Amino acid sequence: MLKIGILGGGQLGRMLLQAGANYPAETFVMENDTECPAAHLCHHFIKGNITDFEDVYNFGKNLDALTIEIESVNVEALQKLEEEGKKIFPRPSALAIIKNKILQKQFYASIEVPTSSFVITENKTEIDNHLHLLPAVHKIAMGGYDGRGVAIIKDPKEIMNGFDAPSVLEKLISIKKEISLIVAINQAGETAFYPPVEMIFNKDFNLLQYQLCPASISEKALWKAEAIALTVVKNLNSPGIFAVEMFIDFEDNVWVNETAPRVHNSGHHTIEASYCSQFDMLWRILLNYPLGNTRAIMASAMVNIIGAEGFSGDVKYEGLEEVLTIDNAFVHLYGKKQTRPGRKMGHVTIISNSTQDLIHKANIINRTLVSRT
Amino acid sequence: MLKIGILGGGQLGRMLLQAGANYPAETFVMENDTECPAAHLCHHFIKGNITDFEDVYNFGKNLDALTIEIESVNVEALQKLEEEGKKIFPRPSALAIIKNKILQKQFYASIEVPTSSFVITENKTEIDNHLHLLPAVHKIAMGGYDGRGVAIIKDPKEIMNGFDAPSVLEKLISIKKEISLIVAINQAGETAFYPPVEMIFNKDFNLLQYQLCPASISEKALWKAEAIALTVVKNLNSPGIFAVEMFIDFEDNVWVNETAPRVHNSGHHTIEASYCSQFDMLWRILLNYPLGNTRAIMASAMVNIIGAEGFSGDVKYEGLEEVLTIDNAFVHLYGKKQTRPGRKMGHVTIISNSTQDLIHKANIINRTLVSRT
Repeated sequence: MLKIGILGGGQLGRMLLQAGANYPAETFVMENDTECPAAHLCHHFIKGNITDFEDVYNFGKNLDALTIEIESVNVEALQKLEEEGKKIFPRPSALAIIKNKILQKQFYASIEVPTSSFVITENKTEIDNHLHLLPAVHKIAMGGYDGRGVAIIKDPKEIMNGFDAPSVLEKLISIKKEISLIVAINQAGETAFYPPVEMIFNKDFNLLQYQLCPASISEKALWKAEAIALTVVKNLNSPGIFAVEMFIDFEDNVWVNETAPRVHNSGHHTIEASYCSQFDMLWRILLNYPLGNTRAIMASAMVNIIGAEGFSGDVKYEGLEEVLTIDNAFVHLYGKKQTRPGRKMGHVTIISNSTQDLIHKANIINRTLVSRT
Repeated sequence: MLKIGILGGGQLGRMLLQAGANYPAETFVMENDTECPAAHLCHHFIKGNITDFEDVYNFGKNLDALTIEIESVNVEALQKLEEEGKKIFPRPSALAIIKNKILQKQFYASIEVPTSSFVITENKTEIDNHLHLLPAVHKIAMGGYDGRGVAIIKDPKEIMNGFDAPSVLEKLISIKKEISLIVAINQAGETAFYPPVEMIFNKDFNLLQYQLCPASISEKALWKAEAIALTVVKNLNSPGIFAVEMFIDFEDNVWVNETAPRVHNSGHHTIEASYCSQFDMLWRILLNYPLGNTRAIMASAMVNIIGAEGFSGDVKYEGLEEVLTIDNAFVHLYGKKQTRPGRKMGHVTIISNSTQDLIHKANIINRTLVSRT
């Protein structure tokens, strides 16, 4: 049995391990939190700091292959491990580009895929020199995650919200739709596309309400999105799972926003809604088995269960029983003992061939299921 | 989080834990083999003998609820734990009936569900007094499992194959079809039926080739099967998952054969083919959540991957890559390091709305995927 390591032990690692139990693999997880969601679903849990060179190198040196479930890992250690013959998917070279928002943006420009205009800044006062880009988004190059390290700067008064560290200032695009396209690429370079996913936001609060798959987009936009995603993934030159997040503007132009070199929140629905889930697919890639079938079994919606505002402490799920009676819903709770505002505590996938049914039930779940104390 | 214990650590425990990771529960497994399929997917693995009173009692005394994935557990310890207020599903009283093939058969007679004629024997020479039941099957009362402890006695010459221990001698029924009906029953006594499953045997070798769901049976036979299964389960008077195995004869009479008071091989397909799998359902019952939806998403077939004759030792899977390219097949390998003739090493589920597609692919998988050394 191959020895496979996962850096990070959050919900993505947890779901990866649930799928991994269908394959012959000995599983290793490294994470600092011994009570993290993935800690008890692996053969071997190693407490360690995934950003530390020694910890990551020592974790990987006796394994056959490694993957990540979060980008904030020590790339230098992964580079050394790759030089010593380990399979690291995503490859450290791809990860290094994506981890740094400046390099990532320059990468998109270099491969000539459409992406919003941008400049590099060393501190927020430099934004003053680029007022023509406003309204813009300021993204810190290193260390941002899940909304942290990102500031919207609509006008000069908001420059103070920017970052005094190397960052990218990107012109805001007028977005009609935000989509994600997950691409699998195996060790032979073969690729498989999942159907695109559309993010539905609450306009008042700018919160993701739910995701729909397949995205309701024009054939032209789909064609562009697939071409962009393929160009991005091919040029990253690495096996793995990649979630390419894109914007569609009101003229049906498609712009790449960001890429995640790993299993991704926008692929949760693939567990029930696809023949081969993104998690199953990553095992196939790691173990060098054939790619799976990305076709959808049914259309689907996915609702994240987010820690409610104003509650921090031991979690209680309000409305769980009601949601468990929805006959085409699949509830995933991540086993986190503590809830915090905005923390991802679980998700619910709905499958149906009726878009109205998906939207109706996604709304019910959004209203009903609350993670609080 | 409730503390839930599972007695036994085989593939059923493994799949139960894969599903359990969607719920907030702290999981405990007891099993003697520290490398068993479920050992690394629980929060706490306890090495112990599930047939030993002290081991089972000590395992259960600090838990909230217990279940089993094999019948051969110490019932007395479970009785004591139940008396002390633990939830034990199946209840020890139901398990005691089912564990003993004599009591189980007498139970069917007492609740007046159709079951084949039988007598109790203390040793094989007593079979001589009941030649009118031949051809018959001789089943040892205690300790049989997966074909062990069962002998077909077609004529008096084969009496020597019987058992010199308390056993049941059952008249063989001329079987048109063998089906299984899985019933879920929750703590409030509410029930939910899965669609019936049909076992397809290789007539030449009397080996299960694959299972089909839903079974292709007459409406009348389905009606009888559901009535029998409900009667059996209601009279067992216990929450849990029950697989009621039945025969259908050439006159469409339905006869109960045996009942398993747990998740069952005949429910493997429910992982992908049902909205709520049998494993998911058992968590709902243990955690006192609402019952899930037993409806099929699609029709399905399930092929067990059995250790090939003539091979014992470190397992290799021949044909795995080919099977992994079948676009509507789901491969489950149980992580057993050693193969042995007849050992259940994994299974493959196929989902499709075409019965021909299911049969065609089940046959391909049967021919292609081999567990050998």
